[in-house]
Amino acid sequence: MSEEMLHVSKIRNGTVIDHITGGHALDVVKILGITGQEKKVITIAINVPSKLFKRKDIVKIEGGELNPQEVHKIALLAPHATINIIRDYKVAEKHRVKLPPLIEGIIKCANPACISNSNEPVKSRFYVESEDPLLLKCHYCGYIIEKKNVLQQF
Amino acid sequence: MSEEMLHVSKIRNGTVIDHITGGHALDVVKILGITGQEKKVITIAINVPSKLFKRKDIVKIEGGELNPQEVHKIALLAPHATINIIRDYKVAEKHRVKLPPLIEGIIKCANPACISNSNEPVKSRFYVESEDPLLLKCHYCGYIIEKKNVLQQF
Repeated sequence: MSEEMLHVSKIRNGTVIDHITGGHALDVVKILGITGQEKKVITIAINVPSKLFKRKDIVKIEGGELNPQEVHKIALLAPHATINIIRDYKVAEKHRVKLPPLIEGIIKCANPACISNSNEPVKSRFYVESEDPLLLKCHYCGYIIEKKNVLQQF
Repeated sequence: MSEEMLHVSKIRNGTVIDHITGGHALDVVKILGITGQEKKVITIAINVPSKLFKRKDIVKIEGGELNPQEVHKIALLAPHATINIIRDYKVAEKHRVKLPPLIEGIIKCANPACISNSNEPVKSRFYVESEDPLLLKCHYCGYIIEKKNVLQQF
């Protein structure tokens, strides 16, 4: 089985999302829209021991790098995640995800009566009240949305 | 990164589902009801090179073994899968999944008018017409259901 793991562990070019909150890798995969049908090599490790946290998840995606919108989506669910960009088998860039103080247009307000859910040309806007646990406050109606509300949208 | 992969690759007791049709590991994870919140160590490899097939997926689940109903569910989506039971770091049992010719009670008929979808005490029953691509024929109404119908139910 060691030969098999070698295949899996090394990626030439791609992205490693590390230090995802333990148990949330499948949520990260979901919000990135990954189904497996993309024919990319993907490795997902869930609840592995971590020095920094007790348990963490890791997602490795061969080929392609994440766009800023995707990085913000990850930050919503896994505020401690680090993104490693791999080029030619080496870590070329490493950065921590960071939620911007204002989140625009990525998620919808969970209040059906909110003006951002009407037909008006209004972009959703949230202030980050808390990163972990996630609490976002709608700019328009003051409604507080949580991680579970975010997950339901992807 | 090699130390990290070592953690991931070795499981003491558990199940390795190997030779899953390339790109279908997340479907297997879904039908097994795994979310990551179970706190078990799980590794998922998608679209890795395979000698037998061009690409394959692997799912490793630490702790616990699958029950026959779960094995049948996997067979529906990944007819070439092999199940390795790991005990004390060694492969204790190895078997290929096999669809029984008659599938009872696991999935629902996709025909809303089928008697198995009424309030009658009738268990669903399907004959396996083809394993790959999956085609199941309802015993009661003759309706043919495909892989996508099965996936929608989990």
